Amino acid sequence: MTVSATLAANEAVAARRAAGQEVLALGFGEAGIPVHPLLSQHLAQAAGRIAYGPVAGTEEAREAAAGYWTRRGNPTDAGQVLLGPGSKPLLFALQHAVGGEVVLPQPAWVSYAAQSQLLGREPIRVPVPAGEGGVPDAALMVAAVREARAAGRDPRLVVVTLPDNPTGRLASEASVRALCEAARELDLIIVADEIYRDLVFKPGAFPSPGQWAPERTVTTTALSKNYALGGWRIGAARFPDSELGQRLQESVRGIASELWSSAPLPMQHAAAYAWSDPAELVDRVAMARRLHGSVATAVAEVFAAVGCDVRVPQGGFYVWPEFEPLRAALAERWGVRTSADLARVLLDEFGIVVIAGDAFGDDPAALTIRVAVTGIYGESDSERLAALLSNDPLEMPWIAETLDALRDKLKALVA
Amino acid sequence: MTVSATLAANEAVAARRAAGQEVLALGFGEAGIPVHPLLSQHLAQAAGRIAYGPVAGTEEAREAAAGYWTRRGNPTDAGQVLLGPGSKPLLFALQHAVGGEVVLPQPAWVSYAAQSQLLGREPIRVPVPAGEGGVPDAALMVAAVREARAAGRDPRLVVVTLPDNPTGRLASEASVRALCEAARELDLIIVADEIYRDLVFKPGAFPSPGQWAPERTVTTTALSKNYALGGWRIGAARFPDSELGQRLQESVRGIASELWSSAPLPMQHAAAYAWSDPAELVDRVAMARRLHGSVATAVAEVFAAVGCDVRVPQGGFYVWPEFEPLRAALAERWGVRTSADLARVLLDEFGIVVIAGDAFGDDPAALTIRVAVTGIYGESDSERLAALLSNDPLEMPWIAETLDALRDKLKALVA
Repeated sequence: MTVSATLAANEAVAARRAAGQEVLALGFGEAGIPVHPLLSQHLAQAAGRIAYGPVAGTEEAREAAAGYWTRRGNPTDAGQVLLGPGSKPLLFALQHAVGGEVVLPQPAWVSYAAQSQLLGREPIRVPVPAGEGGVPDAALMVAAVREARAAGRDPRLVVVTLPDNPTGRLASEASVRALCEAARELDLIIVADEIYRDLVFKPGAFPSPGQWAPERTVTTTALSKNYALGGWRIGAARFPDSELGQRLQESVRGIASELWSSAPLPMQHAAAYAWSDPAELVDRVAMARRLHGSVATAVAEVFAAVGCDVRVPQGGFYVWPEFEPLRAALAERWGVRTSADLARVLLDEFGIVVIAGDAFGDDPAALTIRVAVTGIYGESDSERLAALLSNDPLEMPWIAETLDALRDKLKALVA
Repeated sequence: MTVSATLAANEAVAARRAAGQEVLALGFGEAGIPVHPLLSQHLAQAAGRIAYGPVAGTEEAREAAAGYWTRRGNPTDAGQVLLGPGSKPLLFALQHAVGGEVVLPQPAWVSYAAQSQLLGREPIRVPVPAGEGGVPDAALMVAAVREARAAGRDPRLVVVTLPDNPTGRLASEASVRALCEAARELDLIIVADEIYRDLVFKPGAFPSPGQWAPERTVTTTALSKNYALGGWRIGAARFPDSELGQRLQESVRGIASELWSSAPLPMQHAAAYAWSDPAELVDRVAMARRLHGSVATAVAEVFAAVGCDVRVPQGGFYVWPEFEPLRAALAERWGVRTSADLARVLLDEFGIVVIAGDAFGDDPAALTIRVAVTGIYGESDSERLAALLSNDPLEMPWIAETLDALRDKLKALVA
């Protein structure tokens, strides 16, 4: 197992900077905004808590997570919640507990497939509906699962990401409903990774699979993206209120007890505060949404302006440009044939760090890349805070300059 | 996968207490002493750190861990260190990265075998040398591994625990040296779990396998036991300074990146402080050693006094009494035939929570139990702190009373 492409990109940026090289870091999915001081305060308040606590999490944190989901239209009892040190290990434990093979949207976040491979199983990849992201196309999934079963394979769960990493798109209600019906028909567990849920740019209904397939949907969240606390390693899973849900939760709890014991206690206290939706944090998340939305939209426009196919991002902080219309020029000028070639040229010739689409399971020949826009917010906490607080983040000089630099480099790439 | 026996015991105690039942909690291996205020202060100082940071850990924490090992006779460069959210997930990642099957001492800590089973493999259990604990008997291991290989199995690593959980014994230098030679002969990786290393009661040489098989030994440690910080979830692994070591470390780093991303950043800052061996913490650990040593020794004497076979504990905070000499009486009076029966009678009839020996891989018919003595230190932080600071913890009234109560209950058990 090699290091995940996104974390490797983070370390590559640090190494290049340490060596005095300039890079435009658009590889790693870190939220890029400073911690809210009240979150730090809650962590500091809990710095005396040293007990392991219950495997599933403290009552305080589980209650708060239940409230978080309930206020978002998914009524939840604390008993349905299980915390972990990030949603990443929870997603691994879920794949392990369900067993069998996993169906993934194509493209999908890098670690779902890697976790499946750690369990000795290849995922079944199903293209997303045209122009969408984060969910497999339902009709294609039915066909793929039937074919897999006919071939003796054993698909048992499907993972979806709402809003999506890497595409930055939010699946439509129609696609999610169709996915839910297909999962029921195929008897698949749905794992809904909603780690970017509070970062959907436009207000409106959120198409959570738990609404249409409540009996079979496990939902995960974390503090890493909504609250920019990636380094605190706190996530939570919500299990269905059903016998199946209880069985699955107990199995994940057993795995958790042997893999990580419990989530770090002081962070659980801060999470309990965050998940209670205090006004200060609701405001903060609204500002984060504004920042991510305006920069992601601007970045998408920069890629579109040079001739990429790129859908308007709808949530999170990613843009997913396709360079297909530029294939001939890229092949001729740079010898680019694959997304890996493209990412390498962007890095070697222009100092731009992005992740090649093939890391997300896309066809290696497809000229897609994932662009994480948070590297544009600033070089220092004070720049990032100013960007966060600004009504028009694009007016921040360092952001405007970086967008200009990106535009110039892309023009040079495709010239 | 059911919840690990030790964490289940912790939750059972909480549930019984919540229901108003009195219990003597000797099941769970929590260190039972309050946090040192300077450790809390370091965590609080780092409450603004929200980056994921490098997968292997921050330079600060890796340097400190390298210093920790170097000062203990195992010269280490920061590059050989990898942090994780506790040593538990590191031990899982190690088993995964090495592959094949694992050889375990019999008895051994519950999670080694469970982690092997999560990987779909049964461990190979080899009895410890007579009167010792924590390492397989070398000659028996050679025979068992040869037999396993002849039968088509693929043992590739052996895990040892120094000092041991569950037996509380520190393997002799002779046994560790023989183990190292056998591992070399058999080409096994040695994983030395030294999480209780600083809690060996008597000063003297520490028989770390890294001294005799440096090219093949991975050593793990954590803050959970030495510093009583179980709920902070921070551990570290030290890889051999060899090509094999680098390969293994890179593989574990890859697995880490897909399972947990990084260890919680604020805890890494506190760990960097702890692993630098500041005078205040060195004193604190010395006090912890005194407390664990005096209470464990006293508890062992209580079990011996009623007729158990019990070796003097040498480190950590466990006692491992064998009730074999009392088998006839226990069978007649209580119908006890197995360690599980024994643990159940202790709980149901006497309100004493312990873990049955079979949870540690001991023969279910052997009448062994693991007793974690830290539940005796007090009901409140002030009691536990007084016990920690006392020159003679056994003089603390609540400790003396609990030992008396234990004595009376055991007398009633075996009467």
